[in-house]
Amino acid sequence: MRQRSGLWLMGARGSVATTAVTGLLALRAGLIRPVGCVTERLEMDHSVLPAWDDIVVGGHDIVSIPLDKRAEQLAESGLIPHSVFTAVAPGLRAVDTELRDGYHPVTHTGSLADAVARLAGDIEEFRTRNDLARVVVVNVTSTEPPVPAMPEHQDFDLLVQALNDPQRTVLPPSSVGAYAALTAGCPYVDFTPSPGIKMPAMDELARRKAVPYAGADGKTGETLLRTVLAPMFTARALNVRSWAGTNLLGGGDGANLADPEQAKGKLESKARGLHNLIGEVTAPLHIDNVPDLAERKVAWDYVSFEGFLGAKMSLQFTWDGYDSALAAPLVLDLHRLVSAAHADGQTGALSELAFFFKDPLGTDEHRFAEQTRMLAEWAAQL
Amino acid sequence: MRQRSGLWLMGARGSVATTAVTGLLALRAGLIRPVGCVTERLEMDHSVLPAWDDIVVGGHDIVSIPLDKRAEQLAESGLIPHSVFTAVAPGLRAVDTELRDGYHPVTHTGSLADAVARLAGDIEEFRTRNDLARVVVVNVTSTEPPVPAMPEHQDFDLLVQALNDPQRTVLPPSSVGAYAALTAGCPYVDFTPSPGIKMPAMDELARRKAVPYAGADGKTGETLLRTVLAPMFTARALNVRSWAGTNLLGGGDGANLADPEQAKGKLESKARGLHNLIGEVTAPLHIDNVPDLAERKVAWDYVSFEGFLGAKMSLQFTWDGYDSALAAPLVLDLHRLVSAAHADGQTGALSELAFFFKDPLGTDEHRFAEQTRMLAEWAAQL
Amino acid sequence: MRQRSGLWLMGARGSVATTAVTGLLALRAGLIRPVGCVTERLEMDHSVLPAWDDIVVGGHDIVSIPLDKRAEQLAESGLIPHSVFTAVAPGLRAVDTELRDGYHPVTHTGSLADAVARLAGDIEEFRTRNDLARVVVVNVTSTEPPVPAMPEHQDFDLLVQALNDPQRTVLPPSSVGAYAALTAGCPYVDFTPSPGIKMPAMDELARRKAVPYAGADGKTGETLLRTVLAPMFTARALNVRSWAGTNLLGGGDGANLADPEQAKGKLESKARGLHNLIGEVTAPLHIDNVPDLAERKVAWDYVSFEGFLGAKMSLQFTWDGYDSALAAPLVLDLHRLVSAAHADGQTGALSELAFFFKDPLGTDEHRFAEQTRMLAEWAAQL
Amino acid sequence: MRQRSGLWLMGARGSVATTAVTGLLALRAGLIRPVGCVTERLEMDHSVLPAWDDIVVGGHDIVSIPLDKRAEQLAESGLIPHSVFTAVAPGLRAVDTELRDGYHPVTHTGSLADAVARLAGDIEEFRTRNDLARVVVVNVTSTEPPVPAMPEHQDFDLLVQALNDPQRTVLPPSSVGAYAALTAGCPYVDFTPSPGIKMPAMDELARRKAVPYAGADGKTGETLLRTVLAPMFTARALNVRSWAGTNLLGGGDGANLADPEQAKGKLESKARGLHNLIGEVTAPLHIDNVPDLAERKVAWDYVSFEGFLGAKMSLQFTWDGYDSALAAPLVLDLHRLVSAAHADGQTGALSELAFFFKDPLGTDEHRFAEQTRMLAEWAAQL
Ligand SMILES: NC(=O)c1ccc[n+]([C@@H]2O[C@H](COP(=O)([O-])OP(=O)(O)OC[C@H]3O[C@@H](n4cnc5c(N)ncnc54)[C@H](O)[C@@H]3O)[C@@H](O)[C@H]2O)c1
Ligand SMILES: NC(=O)c1ccc[n+]([C@@H]2O[C@H](COP(=O)([O-])OP(=O)(O)OC[C@H]3O[C@@H](n4cnc5c(N)ncnc54)[C@H](O)[C@@H]3O)[C@@H](O)[C@H]2O)c1
Ligand SMILES: NC(=O)c1ccc[n+]([C@@H]2O[C@H](COP(=O)([O-])OP(=O)(O)OC[C@H]3O[C@@H](n4cnc5c(N)ncnc54)[C@H](O)[C@@H]3O)[C@@H](O)[C@H]2O)c1
Ligand SMILES: NC(=O)c1ccc[n+]([C@@H]2O[C@H](COP(=O)([O-])OP(=O)(O)OC[C@H]3O[C@@H](n4cnc5c(N)ncnc54)[C@H](O)[C@@H]3O)[C@@H](O)[C@H]2O)c1
Ligand code: NA
Ligand code: NA
Repeated sequence: MRQRSGLWLMGARGSVATTAVTGLLALRAGLIRPVGCVTERLEMDHSVLPAWDDIVVGGHDIVSIPLDKRAEQLAESGLIPHSVFTAVAPGLRAVDTELRDGYHPVTHTGSLADAVARLAGDIEEFRTRNDLARVVVVNVTSTEPPVPAMPEHQDFDLLVQALNDPQRTVLPPSSVGAYAALTAGCPYVDFTPSPGIKMPAMDELARRKAVPYAGADGKTGETLLRTVLAPMFTARALNVRSWAGTNLLGGGDGANLADPEQAKGKLESKARGLHNLIGEVTAPLHIDNVPDLAERKVAWDYVSFEGFLGAKMSLQFTWDGYDSALAAPLVLDLHRLVSAAHADGQTGALSELAFFFKDPLGTDEHRFAEQTRMLAEWAAQL
Repeated sequence: MRQRSGLWLMGARGSVATTAVTGLLALRAGLIRPVGCVTERLEMDHSVLPAWDDIVVGGHDIVSIPLDKRAEQLAESGLIPHSVFTAVAPGLRAVDTELRDGYHPVTHTGSLADAVARLAGDIEEFRTRNDLARVVVVNVTSTEPPVPAMPEHQDFDLLVQALNDPQRTVLPPSSVGAYAALTAGCPYVDFTPSPGIKMPAMDELARRKAVPYAGADGKTGETLLRTVLAPMFTARALNVRSWAGTNLLGGGDGANLADPEQAKGKLESKARGLHNLIGEVTAPLHIDNVPDLAERKVAWDYVSFEGFLGAKMSLQFTWDGYDSALAAPLVLDLHRLVSAAHADGQTGALSELAFFFKDPLGTDEHRFAEQTRMLAEWAAQL
Repeated sequence: MRQRSGLWLMGARGSVATTAVTGLLALRAGLIRPVGCVTERLEMDHSVLPAWDDIVVGGHDIVSIPLDKRAEQLAESGLIPHSVFTAVAPGLRAVDTELRDGYHPVTHTGSLADAVARLAGDIEEFRTRNDLARVVVVNVTSTEPPVPAMPEHQDFDLLVQALNDPQRTVLPPSSVGAYAALTAGCPYVDFTPSPGIKMPAMDELARRKAVPYAGADGKTGETLLRTVLAPMFTARALNVRSWAGTNLLGGGDGANLADPEQAKGKLESKARGLHNLIGEVTAPLHIDNVPDLAERKVAWDYVSFEGFLGAKMSLQFTWDGYDSALAAPLVLDLHRLVSAAHADGQTGALSELAFFFKDPLGTDEHRFAEQTRMLAEWAAQL
Repeated sequence: MRQRSGLWLMGARGSVATTAVTGLLALRAGLIRPVGCVTERLEMDHSVLPAWDDIVVGGHDIVSIPLDKRAEQLAESGLIPHSVFTAVAPGLRAVDTELRDGYHPVTHTGSLADAVARLAGDIEEFRTRNDLARVVVVNVTSTEPPVPAMPEHQDFDLLVQALNDPQRTVLPPSSVGAYAALTAGCPYVDFTPSPGIKMPAMDELARRKAVPYAGADGKTGETLLRTVLAPMFTARALNVRSWAGTNLLGGGDGANLADPEQAKGKLESKARGLHNLIGEVTAPLHIDNVPDLAERKVAWDYVSFEGFLGAKMSLQFTWDGYDSALAAPLVLDLHRLVSAAHADGQTGALSELAFFFKDPLGTDEHRFAEQTRMLAEWAAQL
């Protein structure tokens, strides 16, 4: 018997979230083909995955623009076809009734434990109200800067104490959200490079709650290509000397990452991957906010390498994509796969989902082809 | 006990061959590091591979420019460092004494069987004179156009008859060379897209002689990237709509491929790979002769693809490489691996060497990451 | 007192024509800004130019798809904003009533003189019916292949004789159109590389009719960049060694130019310009039909050049544009400027309009900056 | 009668200087053609220009590596052909005897006036010793950061006072050099973006000494292209929305500009030009130090622009050049032209030399084609 499964989006009114929900409604209505949906082509028992019809959406956000207005903006920027927007607008308005106010340190009064309780309550009510077998929480909020390491992040008991102290704010919003998700007994996916669930104390909580989680930072552009291309140089024994990159992006993500402090986490997660793949090379990397690109991202990489007899050669590429169109189907895929893992009783970091992430939790495997194989084998056994 | 192994180059005075020999002498003298040599980084029993010191070079060519003069030209075009050239020039002159006149239909008198006998004789004398455990013949002659299919190519006995008829020329030069190699009991590698060994009758001969062979068409640039990138689109369920390519190259290969008839084989072997990877898409492809690039090849590919909600996106890359610097270490690797396979008693098409080729013999696997894994597993068992 | 001026489009249902008419209606309604309209920024007496409100459109085509349907297709391919399409659809239907069947050799019966009379009659009736001061005929039909030179193209009297012979077809359709335009006393603009007006006999007719004309082949992409960039190399005494180009295009133009015979004229007009600018260099050039690009054109050029001490350097660019969005405002500009030239009594080839063309008539000046200056000076004196 | 003219290089052991001197010696010996030398192709009275044989080189630097060693390094990095290096090495050693220690604040004791006197003395002795008609001083030292504005930079008398105060250091090294050049009665060229001569007090001194000067910051790559391409968008009324740039460079300049403080002047001079050409647009710009590129510079620019009906289009280019090979012939050209201007009695900022500079002194004209014309007209009148 089919069970209904909840998709709770933290950052539900953002570009990625709105595109994912619009696409889900369009898939359900048969308006589009599932291009970009990896689960559709995996060789596996598809009955363990929630069907498009069985996914119910809710979420948190800190802005209040109605979901259909947000989708209309995305249609104007060329990301969503006008005909699709028109057809799904009523469905978007229905989803809008399931959205709740997110947590923001500036507006919140009380302890972090209060915030957690409020967020977890929203999710639990959503689960009960819609009679859902489970809810997978996916974080697609704006990227946050890294946080300084604190003992409370290492030790679950210390963390609980600190959360109850109304004078302290030991967790950034993404981690408050992750904590709330786990508290509500929900599997969690971090699609951003924010601190989120990446703390030993949080892993401890996930294990206590016996839920699986996955992350971090969706891999959809420059980094995807790097994890595809870098292993080629290694396999051919070619000596990469430098790998420079420039990312131009508009949209909410571009505006946010224009702030060097916010960009830091993103730049760090990108750099970690590259060094893991080819070692320490000169690798200048930039993220620039170029508002007129709207929802597009343009990435240019220049790889300088040395071959036999010291020959100096280069590879450069330009990637021109709609960031959220690349991300949204992966959000749906992650919902489906993590739902199935939860149903299967899996817990802790799902390293087999490295395929989806720039900074995979639970593994150091960055090579895309290897990640593809890990995913295929894992999915085949679900 | 170490055995000496012969490397017989068909096309020994060409750019790839000269670079391979120069590099071998430089490696032997410790002048360069083995960048680009795949065998150096494979995890395997390295003692089964001929050491640089144990490889003895001979070959056929139809031009008579001394090998050191050819190397000097390549130094002038920036491919070989001047200091390396100076150091190995005496060694190149020594190799020159082992080179013999190749077969060319225009200058040859007599039957093809006579030609085969002469070529095979040269190789056998080389083996005896140098007291070699075996000789691996590698074809790096100029690319030939495809040949029309004939019954003689299908049936070994028919072929033998035809070869003895002085009025017929049923095989192109590359296949005459392959036939001679097999006749001499030598393993054979086809680094070109020419007809060479790609005929059932030739496979029959290889099996009778119990020798292994590998091919075809070294994968060093645009196609290498295509076999790396195309699986990414598939894995991510992205819909490639078109994949256009332009190759600019100078050098002997550029001049030869400027002739559309000669280029046909190359274009066909490139196209086959792409279609195998992503199905039938619009894929215009050009090879242009641009003499001022000398030994460099510049390839530009533009991939247009569709994502979620019909989003139109693109990836383009420019590869700027020294073609022969990419090819030469692979020629040495192939010599080593095919020598080891021969010592190991393997026969027929070595499909596990697909990693090296645009148009792999014995398999349809074009995905580079899979080929890398096949190679690693095979080498580990040698 | 303002006078109304006719714009007669040969190829009125094509992509360029439809975009020009849609844009004109949108400008008139104040829906868009005149981006890409050169006349708007020229320093000149703007009162000599027809205002958007004063331009009346008619034309010939050989297909019968309604203009609003054609515009809808262009809206779907992203070229025309949906909101603009909706607003101007009634206007497009009104223009549609002014469109007539064009000349096509396959459907025509009778002499070419009959064809000319019919086309000229259509234009004259349009002028009278709408009470227009003048009609400028602009050729935006599909590109035709070059025609073999004939004595009739050189000598006006011979030509007239041949046109009256029902057994002969000495002119291609574009030239039949040009002849009809001149016969009707209309200034003529050739936006295509087709033979059109480029014959001494046609120039003779223009002089007899005392009308000005301009052409040929609108300069909107790769060639525009070449005429901008090539003079830089010259000014800096840098030695261009080769200039390779690849053009990927979809749309009607792409389909048509996929035929090598049709593409010949285009390739020739492109090559002439480059050689005029930097002399004879290696310059392979391709035009590929890539239907999924729809109305976009992607051009990649790779320039290899030599500097001081023989240093080998390169410049490459990728141009990604909507071809018709680049062409359409120029069609409106040309209408305005040629109208003004006609009102001013100018006759023959308007070499000062070289700025707009790949293969400028009446001058050998290809350098874009010089052309810009020639245009500015000429317009200032109108 | 021919007169000999001195070329005094501030930064004489740097990459640009060494390439210029090597090239001059090679031109003199007839070993190379004057590719990249603009004066060779200007239509003018060439007898007013110093011939290659009549240029005598001296200079200051703060490092002591012999000029031939420096040239050898440049030969190893592929910038100077080995054969040329070998042929001119003795000539480089001869020039080395004319090089003197430059001024550096860290090693200098005494007032800036003392420093000026010492530097000016070096130049005057060089002029006398070699019996030169004049000496043109060209600044090719490492780029300095901008300096805070001070009243002494505005007012010549205040400046003189401050220079005599041994406790003050009101001028950066580049300006000390410029002051010394003017003091010695020498024309001055600033090939760098450093403060140098760009102060009203310095202009006052130049006028008192009745010498011409030119600058600033040689235009050889990305900025050259920008001043060529930006006017195209303006001429075609296309709306540039953003213009992003990334520069990868190795060499001494790369290492120096890796320091954000040092890069500031360069980034500012680049940005000023772009804004002058197309107004205020989003224009992120990066300079990265990529040591393995050695003497090469790779620049990538991405221009996003809007056309008719709001069509979104883009142009991107990659420039791959040897920075010093582009700069060196311009240093020779500037020496020749400024020599001729001095002989002609011209004084103050030579705005007609804007063609050579990113940040032209004496004019706001950044459009390359206009600059080319200004230069041609000016040179024709010399
Ligand atoms: N291809 C991709 O688009 C891609 C790839 C990898 C990672 N990501 C990450 O996904 C995230 C979302 O990207 P986007 O383009 O949708 O950005 P966006 O700016 O459009 O959306 C972010 C949304 O999060 C909301 N938000 C911010 N703080 C919140 C909080 N504390 N609680 C609840 N909601 C909050 C914002 O109001 C906004 O609606 C970013 O962190 C981005 O880095 C995106
Ligand atoms: N990266 C690469 O360089 C690369 C990759 C894949 C395949 N290949 C293939 O390798 C081959 C060699 O490339 P190259 O750049 O060295 O070309 P090249 O033109 O420099 O050398 C070819 C040599 O073969 C000789 N030759 C021609 N016909 C012969 C015959 N019948 N017998 C003996 N010798 C003959 C020629 O005289 C010449 O010396 C080409 O077929 C090329 O397509 C090269
Ligand atoms: N940037 C540009 O778009 C650009 C630049 C330079 C030149 N051009 C030229 O402009 C022309 C039009 O381009 P397009 O993209 O609009 O092509 P298109 O194929 O969309 O339109 C051509 C139209 O001409 C019509 N036609 C063909 N033969 C005709 C005839 N004998 N009489 C009347 N109509 C006829 C066709 O039916 C079609 O409607 C082409 O020749 C193209 O090469 C375009
Ligand atoms: N295409 C180009 O190469 C180009 C274009 C525009 C501007 N420039 C400018 O030209 C300058 C030189 O470039 P480069 O590549 O030769 O750099 P470089 O680092 O190779 O050389 C600079 C030289 O200046 C010397 N120097 C530093 N301070 C000095 C001082 N106070 N007095 C005397 N000498 C001093 C250094 O020791 C060094 O030898 C840089 O400022 C660069 O920005 C170069
Ligand atoms: Na986004
Ligand atoms: Na430099």
